Amino acid sequence: MKQVYFDNAATTAMRDAVIDRMAEVMRSQYGNASSTHSMGRSAKSLLESSRKTIASFFNVSASEIVFTAGGTEADNLVLQSAVRDLGVTEIITSKLEHHAVLHTVEHLQKTYNINVNYVNLLENGMIDLTDLERLLKSSNKKLVSLMHINNEIGNKLDINKVAELCKANDALFHSDTVQSVGHYQMDLQDIRLDFLAASAHKFHGPKGIGFAFIRKGSGIKASIFGGEQERGYRAGTESIHNIVGMEEALKLSYANLEKERSQILKLKDYFIDQLQSLSSEVTFNGNCEDKEGSTYTLINVCLPIAPEKGGMLHFQLDLKGIACSKGSACQSGSNQNSHVLSEILDTENLLKPSVRFSFSCFNTEDEVDYVIETLKEFVKN
Amino acid sequence: MKQVYFDNAATTAMRDAVIDRMAEVMRSQYGNASSTHSMGRSAKSLLESSRKTIASFFNVSASEIVFTAGGTEADNLVLQSAVRDLGVTEIITSKLEHHAVLHTVEHLQKTYNINVNYVNLLENGMIDLTDLERLLKSSNKKLVSLMHINNEIGNKLDINKVAELCKANDALFHSDTVQSVGHYQMDLQDIRLDFLAASAHKFHGPKGIGFAFIRKGSGIKASIFGGEQERGYRAGTESIHNIVGMEEALKLSYANLEKERSQILKLKDYFIDQLQSLSSEVTFNGNCEDKEGSTYTLINVCLPIAPEKGGMLHFQLDLKGIACSKGSACQSGSNQNSHVLSEILDTENLLKPSVRFSFSCFNTEDEVDYVIETLKEFVKN
Ligand SMILES: Cc1ncc(COP(=O)(O)O)c(C=O)c1O
Ligand SMILES: Cc1ncc(COP(=O)(O)O)c(C=O)c1O
Repeated sequence: MKQVYFDNAATTAMRDAVIDRMAEVMRSQYGNASSTHSMGRSAKSLLESSRKTIASFFNVSASEIVFTAGGTEADNLVLQSAVRDLGVTEIITSKLEHHAVLHTVEHLQKTYNINVNYVNLLENGMIDLTDLERLLKSSNKKLVSLMHINNEIGNKLDINKVAELCKANDALFHSDTVQSVGHYQMDLQDIRLDFLAASAHKFHGPKGIGFAFIRKGSGIKASIFGGEQERGYRAGTESIHNIVGMEEALKLSYANLEKERSQILKLKDYFIDQLQSLSSEVTFNGNCEDKEGSTYTLINVCLPIAPEKGGMLHFQLDLKGIACSKGSACQSGSNQNSHVLSEILDTENLLKPSVRFSFSCFNTEDEVDYVIETLKEFVKN
Repeated sequence: MKQVYFDNAATTAMRDAVIDRMAEVMRSQYGNASSTHSMGRSAKSLLESSRKTIASFFNVSASEIVFTAGGTEADNLVLQSAVRDLGVTEIITSKLEHHAVLHTVEHLQKTYNINVNYVNLLENGMIDLTDLERLLKSSNKKLVSLMHINNEIGNKLDINKVAELCKANDALFHSDTVQSVGHYQMDLQDIRLDFLAASAHKFHGPKGIGFAFIRKGSGIKASIFGGEQERGYRAGTESIHNIVGMEEALKLSYANLEKERSQILKLKDYFIDQLQSLSSEVTFNGNCEDKEGSTYTLINVCLPIAPEKGGMLHFQLDLKGIACSKGSACQSGSNQNSHVLSEILDTENLLKPSVRFSFSCFNTEDEVDYVIETLKEFVKN
């Protein structure tokens, strides 16, 4: 059967070169990076070389990159320590964040009784920067946590602007950039955010590895205790093959960025066109139709299908070999409504089926045609 | 140059079959286990099948296995939650534990002001069970954290006995079994411990993956917040290839256990013999000479070498291609004295060089001979 993978915001296929590199490292570089003998030093040198390469893409120093088991752990590392160790008593965030941020913030609120403010949203789910500025006036020690690219609706935050607002108001700024690292270039000497979180499996790298950027002198401390790995930021024997795989994946992503971006953008435009031809009642959730204000990597479409029929849509797409998402795929096996769509859609649209199609360089226009053909049966003209 | 790897307690070479299986999974199974489409369900089924296989080796149910990024995270998961969520106000442990336990306990002591008691040690570094019984009489809500196999000196705890003592005295029992899982079989219906921690890279699996056993109904909660992965015990997209690699490695370890154990035990005996022939002044640290009371996988030897010369020993062994350890290799790049040896050796022996040689099924008697030849230059007769 035809297999069409349009769920690249959930996770991506690994590049062959990444797998090959990882297999090679597993075969020949099995030393523990903490060992002082040559096998250990060799592993350590791979590790530090990956750190250096990754840091270079963000124009930061290698010591500001801390490897974690993924984006979730990186978000937790920053947020938990900000409250526990940096004296943050107020977190400003949004209801559209990933659960890695939202649930961590809820835990911190319960445990430390900190203030949590959710910034207002514009109708299309964009952050209301005027409201953010208003919230930033409080005299508490504050941290702002706002994602760069929303994983469900693709909305793109002006992180430069938010970083400036935070700086001007003496607030720390953490950005969950899990959906943008590998897809957007960021010079962190220009963008003065304090922390970011990234995850390799969103840019054709391995699952279970990611990193946090932690700006020098921030005072963040570990949440996992043990050995002195990661200069004390995160204990545990380093997953060298995963780290090298992440490096390789990031290198390839950035080396091919322009080419792949225009290819994917063309696909996105084509997909939007085709959906609109399908029915004039098709609408797009969030800001994903807007080129500047959203990522090129996904669309989230609300289809004019009656609830009785709509309930079967995902099942039918799956039967046809089409992998896509009804909400965030990061919400393990949940059938609940997406917390993001619940915030931004009215009841009428919430009842219609919404689908997130998310892209990579491995997708083709043929695949779009196949999806459109399949959708035709469902969408009333 | 000859390369001899006698540092298997630091980390092990991966088995080829494990690497092949992981590469295959990376190539063909890239779905996110949280996605509900067929690619996701396929990944989920791999994940749950690994969990089931791993659980079966311990005669526990799959829902009692929680995947983590390694042994360190597993230790942290249990210890942190025991204090935060289970109301534990006293931890009984020993000064010979791995830093993943010791530093976590220190952090908890500082943060929650819990009582920490270190159980007395016998001369050979074995846990004084009479003292443990005395400590268990306190009326606080207690958790005992004692490792099964000590990673530096190989001492083997009677975990069955300790589990019974804990049960009888209403204390929870966590065991860091990072050095024993894959090397010893444990039926956790017999051994009534509450929690254990394991790490794949100690049994020829990948680095950066491990698991905690968390007995049903214990009430342990997550320390990393986000998605609903691992039934809420640990958020973050699962590292499927690493988990499948760990499963494969554990399967092979237990399938070959008897054969490899006797092979390695023979090597250990031979190594001890050869060292004793080298000089009558050679002594063994901890209990590693005792077959019942120590693991077959390592020896820790104190060599009769003057400090001036001894300082060069590790450097020279490394030059000769011999990988071994002077302390715990898990202490990243540290030149400090081992905290374990500092507890059990007198000043005179602490000044002499100690070496941990740790074995796997890939080692041979030839390699032992080569080490002995190399040591001859150093050891005065
Ligand atoms: C006894 C013991 N506990 C915990 C650990 C830490 O496990 P990991 O390396 O998977 O973080 C190690 C070794 O590193 C160990 O030997
Ligand atoms: C925006 C965002 N943040 C965080 C995460 C979590 O990262 P990880 O899957 O590496 O735990 C994801 C996806 O899973 C995500 O899309």
